[in-house]
Amino acid sequence: MMRTRKFAELTWKEIQGEIKQDAGIILPIGSTEQHGYHLPLATDAMLAEDLALAAAGQTNMLVAPPVTYGYRSRPLTGGGQSFPGTTSLSGKVLMSMIEDLLCEFMRHGFKKIVLLNWHFENQNFIYEAAYTALERMGKLEGVVDGPKIMVMELSFSELSDDTMDLLFASEFPGWGTEHAAILETSLMLHLHPELVQFEKAVNDQAEQTPWYDVLPIPSKMVPESGTLWKARLADKKKGEAAWREITDNAAASIHNEFSTTVKI
Amino acid sequence: MMRTRKFAELTWKEIQGEIKQDAGIILPIGSTEQHGYHLPLATDAMLAEDLALAAAGQTNMLVAPPVTYGYRSRPLTGGGQSFPGTTSLSGKVLMSMIEDLLCEFMRHGFKKIVLLNWHFENQNFIYEAAYTALERMGKLEGVVDGPKIMVMELSFSELSDDTMDLLFASEFPGWGTEHAAILETSLMLHLHPELVQFEKAVNDQAEQTPWYDVLPIPSKMVPESGTLWKARLADKKKGEAAWREITDNAAASIHNEFSTTVKI
Amino acid sequence: MMRTRKFAELTWKEIQGEIKQDAGIILPIGSTEQHGYHLPLATDAMLAEDLALAAAGQTNMLVAPPVTYGYRSRPLTGGGQSFPGTTSLSGKVLMSMIEDLLCEFMRHGFKKIVLLNWHFENQNFIYEAAYTALERMGKLEGVVDGPKIMVMELSFSELSDDTMDLLFASEFPGWGTEHAAILETSLMLHLHPELVQFEKAVNDQAEQTPWYDVLPIPSKMVPESGTLWKARLADKKKGEAAWREITDNAAASIHNEFSTTVKI
Amino acid sequence: MMRTRKFAELTWKEIQGEIKQDAGIILPIGSTEQHGYHLPLATDAMLAEDLALAAAGQTNMLVAPPVTYGYRSRPLTGGGQSFPGTTSLSGKVLMSMIEDLLCEFMRHGFKKIVLLNWHFENQNFIYEAAYTALERMGKLEGVVDGPKIMVMELSFSELSDDTMDLLFASEFPGWGTEHAAILETSLMLHLHPELVQFEKAVNDQAEQTPWYDVLPIPSKMVPESGTLWKARLADKKKGEAAWREITDNAAASIHNEFSTTVKI
Amino acid sequence: MMRTRKFAELTWKEIQGEIKQDAGIILPIGSTEQHGYHLPLATDAMLAEDLALAAAGQTNMLVAPPVTYGYRSRPLTGGGQSFPGTTSLSGKVLMSMIEDLLCEFMRHGFKKIVLLNWHFENQNFIYEAAYTALERMGKLEGVVDGPKIMVMELSFSELSDDTMDLLFASEFPGWGTEHAAILETSLMLHLHPELVQFEKAVNDQAEQTPWYDVLPIPSKMVPESGTLWKARLADKKKGEAAWREITDNAAASIHNEFSTTVKI
Amino acid sequence: MMRTRKFAELTWKEIQGEIKQDAGIILPIGSTEQHGYHLPLATDAMLAEDLALAAAGQTNMLVAPPVTYGYRSRPLTGGGQSFPGTTSLSGKVLMSMIEDLLCEFMRHGFKKIVLLNWHFENQNFIYEAAYTALERMGKLEGVVDGPKIMVMELSFSELSDDTMDLLFASEFPGWGTEHAAILETSLMLHLHPELVQFEKAVNDQAEQTPWYDVLPIPSKMVPESGTLWKARLADKKKGEAAWREITDNAAASIHNEFSTTVKI
Repeated sequence: MMRTRKFAELTWKEIQGEIKQDAGIILPIGSTEQHGYHLPLATDAMLAEDLALAAAGQTNMLVAPPVTYGYRSRPLTGGGQSFPGTTSLSGKVLMSMIEDLLCEFMRHGFKKIVLLNWHFENQNFIYEAAYTALERMGKLEGVVDGPKIMVMELSFSELSDDTMDLLFASEFPGWGTEHAAILETSLMLHLHPELVQFEKAVNDQAEQTPWYDVLPIPSKMVPESGTLWKARLADKKKGEAAWREITDNAAASIHNEFSTTVKI
Repeated sequence: MMRTRKFAELTWKEIQGEIKQDAGIILPIGSTEQHGYHLPLATDAMLAEDLALAAAGQTNMLVAPPVTYGYRSRPLTGGGQSFPGTTSLSGKVLMSMIEDLLCEFMRHGFKKIVLLNWHFENQNFIYEAAYTALERMGKLEGVVDGPKIMVMELSFSELSDDTMDLLFASEFPGWGTEHAAILETSLMLHLHPELVQFEKAVNDQAEQTPWYDVLPIPSKMVPESGTLWKARLADKKKGEAAWREITDNAAASIHNEFSTTVKI
Repeated sequence: MMRTRKFAELTWKEIQGEIKQDAGIILPIGSTEQHGYHLPLATDAMLAEDLALAAAGQTNMLVAPPVTYGYRSRPLTGGGQSFPGTTSLSGKVLMSMIEDLLCEFMRHGFKKIVLLNWHFENQNFIYEAAYTALERMGKLEGVVDGPKIMVMELSFSELSDDTMDLLFASEFPGWGTEHAAILETSLMLHLHPELVQFEKAVNDQAEQTPWYDVLPIPSKMVPESGTLWKARLADKKKGEAAWREITDNAAASIHNEFSTTVKI
Repeated sequence: MMRTRKFAELTWKEIQGEIKQDAGIILPIGSTEQHGYHLPLATDAMLAEDLALAAAGQTNMLVAPPVTYGYRSRPLTGGGQSFPGTTSLSGKVLMSMIEDLLCEFMRHGFKKIVLLNWHFENQNFIYEAAYTALERMGKLEGVVDGPKIMVMELSFSELSDDTMDLLFASEFPGWGTEHAAILETSLMLHLHPELVQFEKAVNDQAEQTPWYDVLPIPSKMVPESGTLWKARLADKKKGEAAWREITDNAAASIHNEFSTTVKI
Repeated sequence: MMRTRKFAELTWKEIQGEIKQDAGIILPIGSTEQHGYHLPLATDAMLAEDLALAAAGQTNMLVAPPVTYGYRSRPLTGGGQSFPGTTSLSGKVLMSMIEDLLCEFMRHGFKKIVLLNWHFENQNFIYEAAYTALERMGKLEGVVDGPKIMVMELSFSELSDDTMDLLFASEFPGWGTEHAAILETSLMLHLHPELVQFEKAVNDQAEQTPWYDVLPIPSKMVPESGTLWKARLADKKKGEAAWREITDNAAASIHNEFSTTVKI
Repeated sequence: MMRTRKFAELTWKEIQGEIKQDAGIILPIGSTEQHGYHLPLATDAMLAEDLALAAAGQTNMLVAPPVTYGYRSRPLTGGGQSFPGTTSLSGKVLMSMIEDLLCEFMRHGFKKIVLLNWHFENQNFIYEAAYTALERMGKLEGVVDGPKIMVMELSFSELSDDTMDLLFASEFPGWGTEHAAILETSLMLHLHPELVQFEKAVNDQAEQTPWYDVLPIPSKMVPESGTLWKARLADKKKGEAAWREITDNAAASIHNEFSTTVKI
């Protein structure tokens, strides 16, 4: 068994060995974004990497150093760019960076590649990076034994009804709004309790959450705390239950898609 | 009353007059994308422009020439790029083009600008274009009497329960999957019946629609027809009802956001 | 016979059929630019598309949705950027957009591609887009049965002496200066009389028209009306005669270059 | 009097002094492009710099190191890219380079800037570079005492009737076709006779010179020699006469535009 | 005292408080690059972040999430790109990413910014990113109380003679060649012994190390192991001594440059 | 024997002949940068081209028109951007330009290509251009008989101990600081005495030269004269001796690397 799944903690010789044994690679993608009064800026980046590590262990994958800076926060799904600390890349730079990394993985010989995202606003930019990377490598048309990229943009969206009930009872506000709120707080309480200042957590919401966006960002669309929903309803047990499903689901999807045998 | 709301059919002198009277401008954004056996490639672009014209009449807005080529079609929401005729722009080019246009509108003196989208995959690229355009003009921080951009990425998503029932009964597959299916076919039957070959319409769906994407595009995720759901359930009446709500909703949102008086 | 030559009004299945029968595709390229007191901003875009449709009918070509926003207006050939309504793309964005579209057409399987321009200032940007698109597809070196791109930058420049006499008598100011003046006004009177406000047309010219340009644009190089020459000399009959030659010439050139049989 | 007009042969302290005395700067722009059997690749770059130096002496301008690599050669005006030695920049790179240089000149404090071109295909790219440079410096709107850029794209196009007669008699083929032919050969015989191998000069022309372009470049549009017209009709005397007019014209235009006093 | 110096482990409210107290920010920049048989790919990224944290504690700075992917490895200083696992960004993407991040830090209100590099090949790209970020923010000309960026490209280059002697005796090969060799191995033995497989360390060198580079990379310039010098001479004690000097030096430089009082 | 080694002074037919005989090509890369009170801005560009011509004569190489504008001057190695006359390209534009040129040389059929730099700050940008050019041409993986690019970034760094003693006695300040000082002044006295105003030369140095950079550039890091070291110690004899070694070394390196026979 591998002593670590972390790509960057291995030597080049070990990487070479892994590739020969047909290992895959997961690139976790997060953000550095405000998560209310109680959660650290790193929340998305940590959850993305944690999920990748959990899934990697079951599927013979390595985990590359995460993309820790993501696309700009949008008011209705992350509070927007105006909070000190929310540190983002423009869409073009994010895409170019991921494209470069994918081309490197393909150059190394990886055939099984996963982009595992935990930041709502990264959607589409990630998909486009996968598209242009394949185009640049001349691998856009599927070929036998060519590289295959899974693009997992919404890793948290497939919870069972039971878990949804446990988390939200009857009050699910939609995944966009569920920022720095019940799910993320619960997960962080489960995974990184030392980084959660739960006593500062609040239930909050924007004055208005229309179906469209406005720029420059109007204050009415941004809750003061940066928490977009009811963080105080979070607890460790909810986190544990949700995490089990999320990791199982990610691992199963990777497993199925690549027809890998689970490693023991 | 204006003889036309179409920006491009006016002279520069008329545009000048409109701007002096504080008119706004809507940029419709669509795509050139397969829409099954029965709908034209122009479906998204036509619906975006139709909606803009309907809303413009009630809100003292002009309608700019539409963005007719959009971001790449994705399998789970548009069938993907492999259909002949689906003609798309890369993410970077789409963003740059919209950014350029927004800067031009601001340069002309428009203060009320709407990006009105009818192509699921354009999301985020449109928002980013609005962001970088404001940044380039030095107007990202809201200023009194500065330009304001509404970003309407999902103009069709706010239907009433009644209309949802009329359209989908109990079988709503999600807006992503509703491509070239009940809503779009119904709307086109209502608005452009001469371009609908309803006799060719089919109910269809992909063999698999997982929660993630895969590139190169696997055939199992692409229905043969390009219709992602049940187009045969469409009819003109559904289209009429949905269209009334969609146009009212867009006009009301624009009206509220810009506090314009409806023009008579 | 095709019910329409408009690419975007067809279904993907119809496009597939056309490609199998070796149809070509024309991309009309225009602008959204001031055309004096009497002509709409859309003049270039409309003439480009009209010409494409006229030529397409004789040559088994389809007509793609036009590029309606072109390169910046220059004072000596279009009045310059300072008129409200003149809405342009930067050179890089225009080139990138056309490059993307050409690559898409080649990906679909089109072998016969025409870029048909009706905006003086688009020159060179269009040619470069064709060059880089072929380079990106690895098709820059001519190969048997490879794609071929015609770049028609000055579709209006080949009139017979008779027609030149009819249009200009002895007073031809050069094609650059002939903006929103005799030719374009005459053509619009012939093709879209409902969009011409001929009563507002003026004869005008800039105070100075040196052989070089100056930036920032000096007012001495810009006529107040935006009409660079004598629009009042235009009439429908001139338009009809010129249009016949222009369309015949474009169709004949396409026909000859691609050795297509004229379709009946 | 300055010991040299060459910007790059001065020290920074001398440049500082020149700027204080309100000197201007000319950037010559040429190409590295085939010019038939008898002229060097440097022809355009040399003529651009020669002209700049001639004009600079009369107008208190400095001459920056020339842009020696220009935009791609086009078949109908330069023979096209297929000749060994024709070494070109893409349109985007050429524009970006000139934009960077213009911003540097403005940063130094130059108010009078001239882009002096001698390569047909550079047109529009040069203008756009001037536009975007001013935009980047926030100087696009003319301000009192702000920088002013003259864009001289066709420095050779203003010859008197007498000189045109002397050069071409009744057979002027247009400036595009006049590549490596009568004018350029005559000028080089006058200015750099040691670099002209006149014994190798030929009269030549392409098999076809339609009004449109085709890519990939068809051989019928490219004369074997690279000379597009009648080089053998060139002589030193024609060169001398044309050069006098061209330099006088450039100097007078610069002088008039900047209202500078001719320096003695 | 702060519970952590890690920017990303704080909440936005804590960041806001830090900025009000005039805290600075350090961005560590490393690479993901082969480091011989015995050191992990993360070596540069870890050393960059370790150094940042050590210096931050003495200077009231925060430490942003590190740039873990750097510019391409070059043969003479890192073994080159051909080792599996060496995962790099192109120069343009690296610069753009750092530029974006710097602009974000300035937007947050940081005045004291440090780029702290531990990857030889990142030089110049980092400096340019600082330059263009300031240009984009309009802060390139120094202003009172404006942001100031320290660019520390070679943090390891200032060792005392004693430490140089301890490390290299009389055999210092130059910092470029000292890759995965004495210094880095010693530091990792001191800081992260659990990630060093010292038993696999070798003394190695390329067959040829000329003063120039060659592309494609010739094998004669690449040692088989990826270690460019004598890794076996490393030990923990050397690492401890060098680390003390390097961290003291970085902290003192930051302290002096920003005239900050050391925080207690 | 060739009448000239200058690529641009040849005709395309002569270039074709040279390529057939397997000639190589050198691209000299310099800068337009302040060099103290006594040396011209062109110093780097002239030395780069002189060196290329000297080496070319011994190695069957041609010399392309030099890159005369280089990357921005940095305070510790060139005085920084604040001197009037220092005219630089951004890193991205410099890289893109060299990439374009390299692709052109490869397209012409050159197999032996040398990038010969004489401007400290161009490092890494030049290497990256060579890398991306090969990637774009699909030639990054070495192939038999494929093109090979030598990247000579520090052509002056290999002097013998004797020459170093002659130049610097015991006081060598490092190559970065040796700007506009002993070596460059001596070389210019030897090669272009008419462009050296030696009476204005000074010994100078910055108030502080720390191991890191700071932006915006602080005045303490910039010597008033722009000379970073002791220019008055220069003389013609030192220049002659150093030049002999530098040119021999460059020629020998090129010769060895390409296994060319020295031409007679």
